[in-house]
Amino acid sequence: MPDVPIITLTTDFDLTDWYVASLKSVLLGSLRQAQLVDITHAVPPGDLLSGSIVLERAIAVFPPATIHLAVVDPGVGSSRRILIARCHEQLIICPDNGLITWTARRHPPIETHELTWRPQKSSHTFHGRDIMAPAAAALASGGPLASLARPISDPILLDIALAAAGSTRGHIIYCDRFGNFLTNIPADLVAARPNLCIRAAGSDIGPLRQTYSDVPPGQPLALIGSSDLLEISVRDGSAASTLGLNVGDEIEMMEAPHK
Amino acid sequence: MPDVPIITLTTDFDLTDWYVASLKSVLLGSLRQAQLVDITHAVPPGDLLSGSIVLERAIAVFPPATIHLAVVDPGVGSSRRILIARCHEQLIICPDNGLITWTARRHPPIETHELTWRPQKSSHTFHGRDIMAPAAAALASGGPLASLARPISDPILLDIALAAAGSTRGHIIYCDRFGNFLTNIPADLVAARPNLCIRAAGSDIGPLRQTYSDVPPGQPLALIGSSDLLEISVRDGSAASTLGLNVGDEIEMMEAPHK
Amino acid sequence: MPDVPIITLTTDFDLTDWYVASLKSVLLGSLRQAQLVDITHAVPPGDLLSGSIVLERAIAVFPPATIHLAVVDPGVGSSRRILIARCHEQLIICPDNGLITWTARRHPPIETHELTWRPQKSSHTFHGRDIMAPAAAALASGGPLASLARPISDPILLDIALAAAGSTRGHIIYCDRFGNFLTNIPADLVAARPNLCIRAAGSDIGPLRQTYSDVPPGQPLALIGSSDLLEISVRDGSAASTLGLNVGDEIEMMEAPHK
Repeated sequence: MPDVPIITLTTDFDLTDWYVASLKSVLLGSLRQAQLVDITHAVPPGDLLSGSIVLERAIAVFPPATIHLAVVDPGVGSSRRILIARCHEQLIICPDNGLITWTARRHPPIETHELTWRPQKSSHTFHGRDIMAPAAAALASGGPLASLARPISDPILLDIALAAAGSTRGHIIYCDRFGNFLTNIPADLVAARPNLCIRAAGSDIGPLRQTYSDVPPGQPLALIGSSDLLEISVRDGSAASTLGLNVGDEIEMMEAPHK
Repeated sequence: MPDVPIITLTTDFDLTDWYVASLKSVLLGSLRQAQLVDITHAVPPGDLLSGSIVLERAIAVFPPATIHLAVVDPGVGSSRRILIARCHEQLIICPDNGLITWTARRHPPIETHELTWRPQKSSHTFHGRDIMAPAAAALASGGPLASLARPISDPILLDIALAAAGSTRGHIIYCDRFGNFLTNIPADLVAARPNLCIRAAGSDIGPLRQTYSDVPPGQPLALIGSSDLLEISVRDGSAASTLGLNVGDEIEMMEAPHK
Repeated sequence: MPDVPIITLTTDFDLTDWYVASLKSVLLGSLRQAQLVDITHAVPPGDLLSGSIVLERAIAVFPPATIHLAVVDPGVGSSRRILIARCHEQLIICPDNGLITWTARRHPPIETHELTWRPQKSSHTFHGRDIMAPAAAALASGGPLASLARPISDPILLDIALAAAGSTRGHIIYCDRFGNFLTNIPADLVAARPNLCIRAAGSDIGPLRQTYSDVPPGQPLALIGSSDLLEISVRDGSAASTLGLNVGDEIEMMEAPHK
């Protein structure tokens, strides 16, 4: 472990109350020098699909040994398990409720464990603070995973997957702050097909573009975004407020006729 | 003082402008290695009651020697005093306008001082940056309290208190991001009374529950939340948008008939 | 360079997605101990004027050697240049699209360079993560500016300036979270004129005041705010929701008749 561990936080707590700071108080209580990085706390309450997509983005960019604490936990207090997953030499701690799904889809294979450690005292409504944060601190301090958890092979996964090789269809999975729509279509599925034309929910978006300035302001376009997924955008505007699309809508990829 | 001091920030500044960063620039100017932790900056403008409740939650969970800087300061530029309070070996710096109230109620006795130190130059509208943040940095650097402040015994307190032992009534004091209502009824007031039934603003909420999954989705419940207070919630939903309750509404606790 | 570099971040990314954390992952990847300070991520999408004003406030208060990374970049992927500016011994990295304007106006002269360094691989839509953040990390690590950039003298500047000495007019440039309107009228333009009366969009605001409590609650006032600019406010209220003013509205300063 490096001297200064990085611990990221992804929750649906919002920044209005003290709940995020409660997690940080536990982490800093044991690891005074940790680098705590907020991924987002604006996951819609209980939205496991959005939380799952955000969490994968954190794992995609942080260095080895990073610990990711993700708490979107509508089942807190029930018998749902708590998961520790290992991926790219990073560790993720989150409820076993599907939050790990998009990480499992984009970075297979991942290694999964059930957190068996429990504190002597815990609330019934805030396991993020009382169970997951102390476990994250223990792991960030170099505590062995085996002392806290046991291997499992059946983490709960949501019904979402990357579009398969050779597929001509996908769908919208996320809408970002700029109104860009991310799809489940990975870059390598379209990279070798320069003549593709893209349709979204039945409307023509045009050929695959490289960047926003390839079309005039206000025009829609399809391009490979910074998450290495096909995205539907509007130059200098918001696809979300212009195109009438929604998460779940179908994306079609067709070979264009010869030019 | 530990090598890496923790300084928390609680304000009504929001994160839209540069005001929070202005506080941090002062703190980091003297304490390059400090751990700065945002509690929240979303206190509604000038809302001393909400700010007071949030600040108490910070003091409840952070370790000794933490410095808490809290700036909800509608009277900035007037003759209102600036307070330094000591509680659980932590120090709080805030305007003397009632912000310390909920801390004083839940963690009595607290020790209170008036900040007498003033900088050579100060704006008339941002004492958080010009007076309170430099004082917080001085204290976090190990500066003696006596050189900056004098003891006082009459801090301003808001008209809010914990429900007294033996009481059968309380009221709603805060609504969180999930739409949970926190009350002024402490856990120890209900812990020994397993047959209690709870009413909120005249509506029956049912018996005291342990956790959300004790009721079906969409149903209201009363339970002891993570702040060790009685809370009114809706499982997998928002009590705020479902039950028609508001801060200030009355909570009644009645012994249920024998089962 | 000090052992713990400070790097600030100003963007229009919002905190909803993972984009801010993506910048931080790059910075912490090379500088594990850096102090990362969010100025704001709530610049309205593509709003270069607002972004420019916020960025100047960061430069005004942070210590020498701070690195400021500012990404409001509607032209990403086009041929727009990337700027490195030096001001008060601090360095700013941002797109060359006018974001540097308000810094150039309030802290002349600034030194400007074009970032010529490019990574081996970059997305077409997120140069903040792929180009600017690595450059910021290199500079914060003590990398020489000359190895990354070449001097230029023609940075793009927006059509906004401080009211000139002797001027009797200015305009509103920014509205903050409290509903205070900041103007382009610097403190030193009004400091020596105690008999000024202020009009905003044709309405009388009254004489220049020192602080909010100089007028009754709910009343408008003009005063020098914490940014050393003339501001239009309402005591214990919001000028934005009360006075019907907007960014761009004219401010007039007239000598009042003898009292």
